[in-house]
Amino acid sequence: MLILVANLGSTSFKYKLLDVSGDLTADVRPDDRVLARGAVERIGDASTSRCEVTIGDYHHVSEMPVPDHGVAVQACLDQLTDPEHGCLKDAAEVSAIGFKAVHGGRKSGTFLVDDEVLEAMAEMNAAAPAHNPPYIAAMTLLRERFPNLPLVAAFETEFHDTIPEARRAYATPPGWRENYQVQKWGFHGSSHRYIAERAAELLGRTDARIISCHLGGSSSLTAIQNGHSVMTTMGMTPQTGLPQNNRVGDFDPFALPLLMQRSGKSLDELLGELASQGGLKGISEKSGDLRDIESAAASGDAKSQLALDVYVEEIRRHMGGMIVAMGGVDAIVFTGGIGENSDVVRSAVCKNLGSLGIELDEQRNSNHRGSLPPENANKGEGYLQTENSRTQIWVIPTNEEWIVAKRTLGVLS
Amino acid sequence: MLILVANLGSTSFKYKLLDVSGDLTADVRPDDRVLARGAVERIGDASTSRCEVTIGDYHHVSEMPVPDHGVAVQACLDQLTDPEHGCLKDAAEVSAIGFKAVHGGRKSGTFLVDDEVLEAMAEMNAAAPAHNPPYIAAMTLLRERFPNLPLVAAFETEFHDTIPEARRAYATPPGWRENYQVQKWGFHGSSHRYIAERAAELLGRTDARIISCHLGGSSSLTAIQNGHSVMTTMGMTPQTGLPQNNRVGDFDPFALPLLMQRSGKSLDELLGELASQGGLKGISEKSGDLRDIESAAASGDAKSQLALDVYVEEIRRHMGGMIVAMGGVDAIVFTGGIGENSDVVRSAVCKNLGSLGIELDEQRNSNHRGSLPPENANKGEGYLQTENSRTQIWVIPTNEEWIVAKRTLGVLS
Repeated sequence: MLILVANLGSTSFKYKLLDVSGDLTADVRPDDRVLARGAVERIGDASTSRCEVTIGDYHHVSEMPVPDHGVAVQACLDQLTDPEHGCLKDAAEVSAIGFKAVHGGRKSGTFLVDDEVLEAMAEMNAAAPAHNPPYIAAMTLLRERFPNLPLVAAFETEFHDTIPEARRAYATPPGWRENYQVQKWGFHGSSHRYIAERAAELLGRTDARIISCHLGGSSSLTAIQNGHSVMTTMGMTPQTGLPQNNRVGDFDPFALPLLMQRSGKSLDELLGELASQGGLKGISEKSGDLRDIESAAASGDAKSQLALDVYVEEIRRHMGGMIVAMGGVDAIVFTGGIGENSDVVRSAVCKNLGSLGIELDEQRNSNHRGSLPPENANKGEGYLQTENSRTQIWVIPTNEEWIVAKRTLGVLS
Repeated sequence: MLILVANLGSTSFKYKLLDVSGDLTADVRPDDRVLARGAVERIGDASTSRCEVTIGDYHHVSEMPVPDHGVAVQACLDQLTDPEHGCLKDAAEVSAIGFKAVHGGRKSGTFLVDDEVLEAMAEMNAAAPAHNPPYIAAMTLLRERFPNLPLVAAFETEFHDTIPEARRAYATPPGWRENYQVQKWGFHGSSHRYIAERAAELLGRTDARIISCHLGGSSSLTAIQNGHSVMTTMGMTPQTGLPQNNRVGDFDPFALPLLMQRSGKSLDELLGELASQGGLKGISEKSGDLRDIESAAASGDAKSQLALDVYVEEIRRHMGGMIVAMGGVDAIVFTGGIGENSDVVRSAVCKNLGSLGIELDEQRNSNHRGSLPPENANKGEGYLQTENSRTQIWVIPTNEEWIVAKRTLGVLS
């Protein structure tokens, strides 16, 4: 069975086509189940859009007018069924499109997209303004255009449904949670779930206490116990928690009246700036890309160094909260663009934690792109702790599409 | 030298008269330096106000019209110089009034109250609307009424001036910190400084890593290293950090647009509700007083149990952040009304931390109002850890007035 996993932006459509046939627990690497991948960009642009596809060794880029996400999906299906290079005989071989959807509020889980799901997403538009509206628009269009193709929304909040009440509730006035779904939802659920599953395999146990550090353009930490999320850093919206590339992370809402008064700006303007001019970009005054910041900091740029330090301090602060919540930690896992690639961040995050039993092997850490133990690890995977460290420290590349494909299959069957 | 230490509310004036003569490091208990204490309530009320004073064994309550804070201070001085029961011959023996002032923004420290200090406080009015305006009004009035009596503001942020940059900065857009003083200021500085000083005495070392848990109607945690604050839970305003009796604590500002849209309420209304209908009161839907909540939870009230659990989880979360920030913790100190009196909260906060070297002796904890080690402890002080615990766990009653009096003396001399 084939699932097309979609990741939407307001003007983009990225996809992977995954084969989820047979025994999913068998030793087939998820990467070997990807038949094709592609991207359509600048959707709705007056000129032409770039449509890219990779099927095995075949790579093709075309330019064509793509006025909406319906046309983008059609272009994708045309490429996949191309008689010469395609991997499908018929578009009907695609059993469903699975969406890595962001915020369904009261509909947290994986669902066939229907009116109720779309309505629940619309209720959360103001909490995820960059994500929900384009998803709703595209899903609505695709339902019309491809009435026989099931659409499935796998919400990023779902993995966090197991977080205990006392770590989900804000101390808000009565009724806010019931009436407006104000609670700590958490996001990046597909990534953290993948880390939970893969770490259990690599550790050889399902009861480990794990801190999954998804560090990238958007970052969050999740505490995992017995395979379940028990705490996470993002809250009601994906804006909170760690500082992001250009978004503030945790912030004091009671600073807003003072800022409005003193700056003359509206609430919307201030929140807009916090969500686009803040984060690593705001502190460094240079870039939201950690690679630029690391390199500027290494050259002595004080603001870039501060941005790096704030990022690391916030990761450590949240990690500490999770260690206490779980009464200890058996494994810390780094994933995402920064987590997989920045030895500087990993080293700083693990610094001076020997008394807690956490010891990074600096040699392994800086050699991560070289060969790493254990020998049975997949590409990019490996552990970085010293022999004496009680806590294991891993790098594991994440695979969100694999999780969305499996969740989608679950809904179909 | 005598200092009158003042704690103001918009309609109240509470004070202690402290003797700060001689060697302050000598073994004189701060409590033995309090010559008098008192309170004036319902200031500005159309009817009469209650004026209370205690001088040694003498306790007196009178009712009189007190239209403003100037009259309140005069009433206080009249009581202190009462020929029969007073402790002063002349009001001029009072060298200064020291104020436990809240938020001076760019003026963080202890200062003689002058136009610049009042202006800096006024700039922060919107960040501390319940505290700054009444202080400014009272200080302005007292400067006119008692031109020869120095007024000193000891700001609650001062102790936190030593927090490293990377734990003070929000990831805000460029310029916000410089232009609007948006940073993590921290509060309860007098209390945390007292704990830092007293814990160093009781531990017999000045280099300990301490987590000071000031838990009461208003709560915050501070990490103390080498006697200095290095991290704290409150941020730009005293609303953030732990959930408070009726205030929300940490909250997601990006939830506000959704709440405005869905509830039809204004930003001011929503923030007002978060600051008066939230916290323990909001979750329990019963009371903001932890004693009521503990008792209702013990009787099986689920919402009260949730309020208690959220409070404890948040204390643990922040405590964990501080343990990682300091690379370990030598002593955890509980203070404030809840910290000193709730064995339930202390027990829950320390639960399941044996692997981190933190072990509460439940017997000592529940016997706290009985006799506790060590023998040289002052009233209410004592340690609660087991023999095997690597981290010491203390209860130490705080004494904010003693700190304000000493800081005031420092400015005068």
